[in-house]
Amino acid sequence: MAETLVPYETLVSFTRQLFRSIGCSEEDAVTATTVLLSADLRGIDSHGIARLSGYIRLWEAGRVNAQPAIRVIHETPSTAVVDGDSGLGLVVAPFAMKIAMKKAAEVGTGWVSVQNSNHYGIAGWHAMMALEEEMIGISMTNASALVAPTFSTERLLGTNPICVAIPAGEEPAFVADMATTTAANGKLEILQRKNLEAPLGWIQDAAGNATTDAHALKTGGALLPLGGDREHGSHKGYALGAIVDIFSAVLSGANYGPWVPPFPAYVPMPSDMPGKGIGHFFGAMRIDAFRPATDFKKDMDQWIRRFRGAKTVEGAAAVLVPGDPERELEALRKAAGIPLLDAVMDDLQSLAQKFSIPLRLV
Amino acid sequence: MAETLVPYETLVSFTRQLFRSIGCSEEDAVTATTVLLSADLRGIDSHGIARLSGYIRLWEAGRVNAQPAIRVIHETPSTAVVDGDSGLGLVVAPFAMKIAMKKAAEVGTGWVSVQNSNHYGIAGWHAMMALEEEMIGISMTNASALVAPTFSTERLLGTNPICVAIPAGEEPAFVADMATTTAANGKLEILQRKNLEAPLGWIQDAAGNATTDAHALKTGGALLPLGGDREHGSHKGYALGAIVDIFSAVLSGANYGPWVPPFPAYVPMPSDMPGKGIGHFFGAMRIDAFRPATDFKKDMDQWIRRFRGAKTVEGAAAVLVPGDPERELEALRKAAGIPLLDAVMDDLQSLAQKFSIPLRLV
Repeated sequence: MAETLVPYETLVSFTRQLFRSIGCSEEDAVTATTVLLSADLRGIDSHGIARLSGYIRLWEAGRVNAQPAIRVIHETPSTAVVDGDSGLGLVVAPFAMKIAMKKAAEVGTGWVSVQNSNHYGIAGWHAMMALEEEMIGISMTNASALVAPTFSTERLLGTNPICVAIPAGEEPAFVADMATTTAANGKLEILQRKNLEAPLGWIQDAAGNATTDAHALKTGGALLPLGGDREHGSHKGYALGAIVDIFSAVLSGANYGPWVPPFPAYVPMPSDMPGKGIGHFFGAMRIDAFRPATDFKKDMDQWIRRFRGAKTVEGAAAVLVPGDPERELEALRKAAGIPLLDAVMDDLQSLAQKFSIPLRLV
Repeated sequence: MAETLVPYETLVSFTRQLFRSIGCSEEDAVTATTVLLSADLRGIDSHGIARLSGYIRLWEAGRVNAQPAIRVIHETPSTAVVDGDSGLGLVVAPFAMKIAMKKAAEVGTGWVSVQNSNHYGIAGWHAMMALEEEMIGISMTNASALVAPTFSTERLLGTNPICVAIPAGEEPAFVADMATTTAANGKLEILQRKNLEAPLGWIQDAAGNATTDAHALKTGGALLPLGGDREHGSHKGYALGAIVDIFSAVLSGANYGPWVPPFPAYVPMPSDMPGKGIGHFFGAMRIDAFRPATDFKKDMDQWIRRFRGAKTVEGAAAVLVPGDPERELEALRKAAGIPLLDAVMDDLQSLAQKFSIPLRLV
C-alpha cells in the first residue's frame, strides 16, 4: 500500500471548501474540518479524512443536515440535552461540549447528553476542548453495532469510545482516548487491507468462537469487548461499552444498542428505531471546583513524572502516559504532512472533481 | 477448604457490636456493617467480612479513626471535596455519596472527591444508593499499588474499581461494578488457596513477563490492567485505573499511585506521601435532569430486555446484564446464609474472644 505525505494545510483547505459546498456555514465548515483532521494529526487514521467521502454520502442520502438548528431541549444548572437536528457530529459535538464547559464555569461541572446527531470524529478532540479552561473534559459516543457482548453471537454495541482529558502543569495533559473494544475497528481494517491474521481476542466468528480471521465481520462475526473473553474480563469491556451507550442515547433520547444508525449510507436504517440519530455524552469539571488549580497541577506533574519514569520491561523504551503517542505524532504530522493511502487519495480526487474544488495532492 | 453457611443476621449483629467496641457511634456501626456485608451478600467475598479483622488491625495501628469528624472542605453548587478524617471508608463513602445526591437534587448532578479515607468496601454499594432517588450513581476508589501499567515492572496502581448504577423501570437496575484489572485480586487469592495456576493475562512476574504463577505477586510480580497485554488493550485498562486514581486522589488531595497506604496494617506506609489517606470519587446524576424519568425507564427496560434476550454462543444460558449475577446471589444468600471459609471463621472467633462479643457460627 503506497502512502503519500500530504501537507496538513492542503487537507484543511480542501475539506473546508467541501463542507462549504454541501451548504455548511463558514464557521461550521471550519469547525468540522478542524475536528475531522485532528484524527489524522493524532494518528487515528480511520476517523479522519478517510471518512470524508462517507460524511458526504450521508448528506447525499439526506441523513446529514448541513444547516442544522442545534438546540438545547432540556436543562438544569449542571445538565443539558442537545438536539443535533441531524447535523454533522463534527459540529454538534463542539456545540454540546461548549455548553458543558459553560455550566462548569457557572456551577462547577457541566454534563450534556446529545440526541439526533451523527458520527463526531475522534472522542479526544471534544474532551480536549476543556483543557484550555483548566477543566477536565469527558467525551463519549455510541456508534452502530459491531461488538458482541459477552456470551452473545449478536452485535449489539458500537466500539463506543471514551475520552478523558486531564490538564497538568508543566507536563503535557493526560489524554486517554479509547474504544471500549480490545482493538479499534481501524486496526482491524489495516489487517484486512494487508491480508494479515488478527490476534485471538479481537474478534469472534458468527457462532461466537474466537477467530484470527480479520474478515470475520463480513460473515456474521463481531468485534470483542475490551478483555476479549470472559476469563480475561470481556464482561468489563461490555459493561463500559454499555455505559457509553446508555449515557449517550438512553439519557438523551437517541438510538441505542442495535438500533444506532450505520455510518455507511448504503446500509439500510434499522427498523423500529426507538430514538433520534446517534447519541453523545460530554462532561466538563472545573479543577478549582475541587482544589486550587496550582495544587492540582503540581500533583498531576508528579503523577505523570512518576509513571513516565517507572522501570520498564526489557525492550520497552518507557512507560507511556495516556496521550503521549498521539501528541508526538501530532507534532510530527503537522510539520511533515499526513500520510494518505492511494485509496484515500483516489477518494479525495473523486470528491474534488464532483464538487469542482481544486486539489493538488502531489 | 470447608465452608459453613452462616445466617446474614448473625454476621450483622456481630459486626455491628464489633464496630461499637472500637468506638464507632451506633449510626456509624450500622452503616459500616451494612456496607461491609453487602460484599458478602453480592458474592464479592474478598471485600466483605473476610476483611473485618484487617479493618480492626488498622484501627489498632492508629490508622483508622473510629470517631472521625468527616467534613466538606471545599464546594461549589455541583461539587465538593470531603475530608474523611481517617475514618472507616465504609462510613466516609456513604457520607460523601449523600452529598453528591443532595447536590444532584439541587442542580442536576453532584460530584464529590474524598481525601483522608480508608478502604470503602465494594464500589457498588455506594453507587447503588443513588438508585432509590431515580439517579445514576457512580463510585470509584484508589487502592494500594498491585498493578503494573503497560511496559512497567513496577506496581503503580491499585485494582481501582469503578461502579456505575443505572435505574430501570420494571427491570432491575443496571449495576456494573468492576476492578480495572483483568481479574480482581480476590479471584487470584482463590487460586492461591487452591494452589492452581492463573490464566495468562492476569499477572506478570518481577521482570514483567507473562506468568501463570498465582503467587507471583509475592516475588515482585504484579496484577495486569484490563486487557492483559499491549496487543489486547492493556493500555486501556491502565488508563481506566489511572483515571480512577486521579479523580479519587489528585482531585481531592489524597495519596495516589505508589503512595496509596496499604490495607494490611503490618505493611509500612510509603515514604514521602504526597497527600492524605486514600481517595474516592462519587457522582450522582438525576435522571430527570436530562429526560422525564418515565421515558428514560421505558427505554432502559427495552435496552435490558434486548440485551438479555440476545442469541447466545453455544453453552451459555443467556447474555447477562451487568448486575445480574450479584443480584441473584444476594437474594440467595440473604435467605440461605453466607458461606464462610474455616480461616474466616477462625478469624471471627478470635475477634469475638478479644472483644468479648458472643458469636455462635454453627
